[in-house]
Amino acid sequence: MTFSFVTQLSCSKCSHVYSSDLIHQLCKCGFPLLVDYDLEALAKVLKPKDLLERSHDLWRYHELLPIKRPENVVSLGEGMTPLLPMPKLGADMGISHLYMKDEGMAPTGTFKARGAAVGVSKAKELGVKGLVMPTNGNAGAAWSVFSSRAGIKSVIIMPKDAPAMIRSEVAAANSNLFLVDGLISDAGRIAAKAAADFQLYDVSTLKEPYRIEGKKTMGLEIVEQLGWETPDVIIYPAGGGVGLIAIHKAFKELEKLGWLNSGRMPRFVAVQAEGCAPIVKAWDEKKRESEFWPDSRTVAFGINVPKALGDFLVLQAIYETNGCALAVGDDEILGEQKHIVGKEGAFICPEGAAAFLAARKLRESGWIRENERVVVINTGMGLKYMDNENINLPVLRADEDIASLPVLP
Amino acid sequence: MTFSFVTQLSCSKCSHVYSSDLIHQLCKCGFPLLVDYDLEALAKVLKPKDLLERSHDLWRYHELLPIKRPENVVSLGEGMTPLLPMPKLGADMGISHLYMKDEGMAPTGTFKARGAAVGVSKAKELGVKGLVMPTNGNAGAAWSVFSSRAGIKSVIIMPKDAPAMIRSEVAAANSNLFLVDGLISDAGRIAAKAAADFQLYDVSTLKEPYRIEGKKTMGLEIVEQLGWETPDVIIYPAGGGVGLIAIHKAFKELEKLGWLNSGRMPRFVAVQAEGCAPIVKAWDEKKRESEFWPDSRTVAFGINVPKALGDFLVLQAIYETNGCALAVGDDEILGEQKHIVGKEGAFICPEGAAAFLAARKLRESGWIRENERVVVINTGMGLKYMDNENINLPVLRADEDIASLPVLP
Repeated sequence: MTFSFVTQLSCSKCSHVYSSDLIHQLCKCGFPLLVDYDLEALAKVLKPKDLLERSHDLWRYHELLPIKRPENVVSLGEGMTPLLPMPKLGADMGISHLYMKDEGMAPTGTFKARGAAVGVSKAKELGVKGLVMPTNGNAGAAWSVFSSRAGIKSVIIMPKDAPAMIRSEVAAANSNLFLVDGLISDAGRIAAKAAADFQLYDVSTLKEPYRIEGKKTMGLEIVEQLGWETPDVIIYPAGGGVGLIAIHKAFKELEKLGWLNSGRMPRFVAVQAEGCAPIVKAWDEKKRESEFWPDSRTVAFGINVPKALGDFLVLQAIYETNGCALAVGDDEILGEQKHIVGKEGAFICPEGAAAFLAARKLRESGWIRENERVVVINTGMGLKYMDNENINLPVLRADEDIASLPVLP
Repeated sequence: MTFSFVTQLSCSKCSHVYSSDLIHQLCKCGFPLLVDYDLEALAKVLKPKDLLERSHDLWRYHELLPIKRPENVVSLGEGMTPLLPMPKLGADMGISHLYMKDEGMAPTGTFKARGAAVGVSKAKELGVKGLVMPTNGNAGAAWSVFSSRAGIKSVIIMPKDAPAMIRSEVAAANSNLFLVDGLISDAGRIAAKAAADFQLYDVSTLKEPYRIEGKKTMGLEIVEQLGWETPDVIIYPAGGGVGLIAIHKAFKELEKLGWLNSGRMPRFVAVQAEGCAPIVKAWDEKKRESEFWPDSRTVAFGINVPKALGDFLVLQAIYETNGCALAVGDDEILGEQKHIVGKEGAFICPEGAAAFLAARKLRESGWIRENERVVVINTGMGLKYMDNENINLPVLRADEDIASLPVLP
């Protein structure tokens, strides 16, 4: 049995094709490359039930991933995260079938592990010895540990105000970590220069074609976990938007394989923060591409991306599926985050909370109907965002007793 | 089909039996209660292959868990964590089949989620409205979020020097969190008093019989993930030792079910820190019980337990399986932790690193043979232990380039 049904890379803009056996970055036209598979051949030899006995991680979908030889797989057990029903939160919003795809349960605690696992595995297969990545944080953490696992040297460059916890995580993984007194765009420039100076593979978002394949498995899992049914709506917090592009790609591949019982596509929703909403603005103005968002800021640092290279693919997925895009405010994001952990015990990241807030608003506006099946992507664990400020807590003496219980459930 | 094959509770010391439909804490003789199942009946109706289509979490083993009605299950997707091969680390130690059961991928990032999921679910089934727990940290984090999910009020009491990150996590889950200017034993006294004063269920370690059932699923999963084969050695970092007792219980139940292909039991190893090694001392002295370890201290705070209520069960599991117990030092624990993330990309907690260090030492002494299959339990993610101290890192100006790469892979 063939391990991967990958055929080639093709440009998302001009359709020019490239070999998947050689290192490529962007297409010569400047746009991202996507991975193609022989889905017709695969449909003949693989059925959903064949997956039952496979490992409980994203490698169960290896035919739909670009790694050709199993010995190149670099895994820390990523994928097959829970699809959790959120009944109390759903009741509260008026959505009867609300689910959370919880990406907090991953190596390094975020969905970035998926892109890193597949990206690093393919880098290993292509003979890469060292790679360089500019990052706001979580992607750097994920790529650094998978590079360690693969024995590939990694160089990670992040703005100096990236969260301290993530800095420590990257440093622990023995990466070459550099902080920059500037923005992610400055880190990008330094990365490009370092790639040239030190013969490193530049794995900036969408400059390498494989991380999207890792993230695609979120879509494959959602459908498998729903018994090969599609949800009605998928809500995703979009920074670079790669996850949304990837989940949309998953659904199109499953459709071609004939693996969708319902045969319908879900409507895709991109959620951004009011302080950084270029894709929402483009969608509001019915444009195919976004413009650079100046002075962007939000507590949800994972979606602080002022101009995404794949913006046109995100917008395309929204238009094709009759989806939408909306922006939410920082204060209400933090309120929703607190509400969710109190209600459902899930301590999620602000980006995930933004996506739940969007569900709430779209239900209020009637865009989501009561009986629709809604899947919200939580991209990471709340723990990684904790600033560990001193919270005001009662301290008892060793010989003292509790006099009253202030907090109700 | 019956959801649970639970029959009763029986005392681990005097064998007195109790109903599993009523709230019980310790046996009247003062020792912990264990949960019994009708394994003979279960063996007739369930086979390992029946599990294939089940959810990828610990509830796949619901017949071997104490919850009778599925609607009482409180889940955040816990369980079915990866069993990762560690080939480079194994080569380095001279162990050809070294695996890590990685409990970092869990709600709240530690194996405590298993005990909390099953403990809180059973509390819900028993009609509990509020519970109280003294904790050094991670158990409190897990029980607080599962209580939120269940709609049960939780009161968590921890020493004031518990890690700030865990304090914040418990506070986020909307628990009644109290810090105490004292030790875990003081927290225990305050918890017992609060249980009486506020009609709360005291869920101190082994004072409720159900968390052990949740932790038992680690053992069930290891065997299922190895294709119903048993490993030769299981190495566990033991504080209270509940996980070790639980995994041993899992193996005994699987043996009775006839689900162990090999029919052999693994040898169990309990690892402690040199600064808190009561069980190791008892084992060295061939005793059946441990003595209180005064002035205990270790960086691996999860195994800082000077006298465990279930010590005699830990020692029993070691003696029965021809296992052993050994202590390792804090400095070498931190060295091993760093070595592992650099070598395999797995950023594990100090307790997990202590267990790997034990594997290394037992191989050096010849107690573990080269071709034995060794499973090390990593009880949590390294991230939760990060002090976020300023690490010394190069900071570039926005217009500066990288001059050299100091860190090698």
